[in-house]
Amino acid sequence: MTAGTTDVHGWLEERRRAHRFRVDRIPFAELDGWSFDPVTGNLGHHSGKFFTVEGLRVDTTVDGAGRQWHQPIIRQPEVGILGILVKEFDGVPHYLLQAKMEPGNRNLLQLSPTVQATRSNYTKAHKGADVRYIEYFTQRGRGRVLADVLQSEHGSWFYRKSNRNMLVEAVGEVPEHDDFRWLTLAQIGELLRQDNVVNMDTRTVLACVPFADPEGGSLHSGTELLSWFTGERSRHDVSAERVALAGIPGWKRGERTIEHEEGRYFDVVAVGVQAGSREVAGWTQPLFEPRGTGVTAFLTRRIGGVPHLLVHARVEGGFADTVELGPTVQYTPSNYAHLPQAERPPFLDLVLGADPARIRYEALHSEEGGRFLNAESRYLFLDTDEDQAPLDAPPGYLWATPGQLGALLRHNHYLNVQARTLLSCLTTGAVRL
Amino acid sequence: MTAGTTDVHGWLEERRRAHRFRVDRIPFAELDGWSFDPVTGNLGHHSGKFFTVEGLRVDTTVDGAGRQWHQPIIRQPEVGILGILVKEFDGVPHYLLQAKMEPGNRNLLQLSPTVQATRSNYTKAHKGADVRYIEYFTQRGRGRVLADVLQSEHGSWFYRKSNRNMLVEAVGEVPEHDDFRWLTLAQIGELLRQDNVVNMDTRTVLACVPFADPEGGSLHSGTELLSWFTGERSRHDVSAERVALAGIPGWKRGERTIEHEEGRYFDVVAVGVQAGSREVAGWTQPLFEPRGTGVTAFLTRRIGGVPHLLVHARVEGGFADTVELGPTVQYTPSNYAHLPQAERPPFLDLVLGADPARIRYEALHSEEGGRFLNAESRYLFLDTDEDQAPLDAPPGYLWATPGQLGALLRHNHYLNVQARTLLSCLTTGAVRL
Repeated sequence: MTAGTTDVHGWLEERRRAHRFRVDRIPFAELDGWSFDPVTGNLGHHSGKFFTVEGLRVDTTVDGAGRQWHQPIIRQPEVGILGILVKEFDGVPHYLLQAKMEPGNRNLLQLSPTVQATRSNYTKAHKGADVRYIEYFTQRGRGRVLADVLQSEHGSWFYRKSNRNMLVEAVGEVPEHDDFRWLTLAQIGELLRQDNVVNMDTRTVLACVPFADPEGGSLHSGTELLSWFTGERSRHDVSAERVALAGIPGWKRGERTIEHEEGRYFDVVAVGVQAGSREVAGWTQPLFEPRGTGVTAFLTRRIGGVPHLLVHARVEGGFADTVELGPTVQYTPSNYAHLPQAERPPFLDLVLGADPARIRYEALHSEEGGRFLNAESRYLFLDTDEDQAPLDAPPGYLWATPGQLGALLRHNHYLNVQARTLLSCLTTGAVRL
Repeated sequence: MTAGTTDVHGWLEERRRAHRFRVDRIPFAELDGWSFDPVTGNLGHHSGKFFTVEGLRVDTTVDGAGRQWHQPIIRQPEVGILGILVKEFDGVPHYLLQAKMEPGNRNLLQLSPTVQATRSNYTKAHKGADVRYIEYFTQRGRGRVLADVLQSEHGSWFYRKSNRNMLVEAVGEVPEHDDFRWLTLAQIGELLRQDNVVNMDTRTVLACVPFADPEGGSLHSGTELLSWFTGERSRHDVSAERVALAGIPGWKRGERTIEHEEGRYFDVVAVGVQAGSREVAGWTQPLFEPRGTGVTAFLTRRIGGVPHLLVHARVEGGFADTVELGPTVQYTPSNYAHLPQAERPPFLDLVLGADPARIRYEALHSEEGGRFLNAESRYLFLDTDEDQAPLDAPPGYLWATPGQLGALLRHNHYLNVQARTLLSCLTTGAVRL
């Protein structure tokens, strides 16, 4: 197995050499086919394809306390497919991953799902074009569906974006291609313990691998968990209205960036991509570039001998419905550095100052490299005790087992993409609690 | 049991006499506190409370075929609680229903849930006001939650409206009030076989009563059902944009109605209500009044001896997400009378011309009487065979068992409110398939 993952690194290096990639920052004026609408200031492609960068005004109220902000947001209404093909070899399930370049990843090439395609991509594919293996995910009888669910992407950066997450067991022989490799869950788990190898789309699909015992030994029953979630959705009012990007309060547009006046959150930037191996030799596009590295962590405790995770009902402006469940901590610390102690996010300082002996898992992972530039987060599982994280959790937080969260993942919009990354570390055995 | 439901009718008559109600149609100009915005033409209350009537532009595309329309829509972002209190007497669960007046019901008084309250109502209640029994649904420790889930309301008339559907088993003695009565499921089932006795909110909550055997003997596995649903959500593009009500194409505003130019769909009207028994002596409000009576039916078949229902993945402009599962047939026939045979809705003529011997259930029920005036549908279950409704159902349709649909009802936005009315006929035993 160790040899296997060494192999993977060799193969990734080889694919890196086989393809020539170069990504450069460019001013907005050098974007090819992209422009700011003269009236709204929204940034879009002249074809109407791909995505737009628009403005969003968010108003939230919880228990009578309100908050409002404006921000740029990516709008891409199309539902894409993120699909991993599964096949048993010698009785062991293997997952077909692809060495794929994405311009926003610091190391460019990471392991993506078998298929990672927008609908424009894959309907074009129906006419004989080039999304490999798409037929296993769009045609009946080519495989047995193991999981198939719409899941949200980053609600802080995307407006109501969902992708279809699919695991499909292939029927019959599957042809191999140079950019693809069959890996076991254990191998992927080992790669997940390393920084920036397994891309976000792979992680969210692997989070859907079923857990053995969904509800055994949980502190709260399934009905209690659902009732708490319904209560959290009900007590939050969130109104998110798309507005013109031009002139949204708190943001300024320059030649090369749209950025927050205090230098927080993220910038909108543009890049030029040169890629030797694509059907198109190069392209330009906007990307969102976060300021600072995120910290994303589940606090964990054994309760009655059973591992539990402290989930957080989180508002993100782009969610389709008020809240989804996120990790206990999901913040970019630099955005909160200016706040007085009392207003700092719950549990953040606990994670930042954690005793290394109690960190069960830690690795740096990239978010979607097709839309985000150098968007990296430190993902952690941290053991805690009653003093640090009481069983009677504060409002908005609840203890749940990984199996309970896995059961929710059969349905859409319960768990945000960061929680799903951390769950993929459990389904693959990258960490055992 | 028969005696029990006779009692119920006597009690409803008695409550009808105890309260004096009168509902009159009035011109919009006589609405008190309501007015059309001079710029947008939206109809709202000067307090900003209750709801607004706005415009909606809907664009849908499925498999490349597009459709667009405009319509008035009710916007009421607040999440309300629809809650039924449950308690065992002599080992038999009883459900606490209320004789409640709603101005849009033809017979005014119907059986509502224990609690049917907007959040404005029930947060006011926290200050000591008057939503009876609300504490069982908002305070911990007063009861055991049996079901608690956000469910959509009519997507053709409401913009993304959800209510919280709750079943709570009471802890301890429950005080009784004149307008409330404990009934068994069997009693409610008998009342559901009668026209216009059990209101819509009661029906949607009772649909959440768990089925005994969720997945036994189903034609499609749970994973297949979820995958089909995900596929239906993915293949539909629906864009629903709120627009100014003034001047939406196809609709005209008069002194007393906003109506469709062809006289189809529904009218927006206004009523004055005089109610002797309320804390307020009377009020005025807008209502939506559908043109014609709806027909809402599940086709049923026994497959391998197990009853199945043919569900339909339906687009409604106000849904939060593209499609939800509706009954096989859900149409107001008069809206389609002008269409050539080939364009008539699938299965509608089968239901309209059904052999009475194959109708397993038929009753007239009202939709939400607080928002809709004389909105009645004929609800049916109709036995079918392979010639009428093949196992290999057409695109957008799938056979599922009642138990499978009941399992989906633990989660939000799978089943629309009409499908839930029909399911409540199964959970209460009003019909046995």
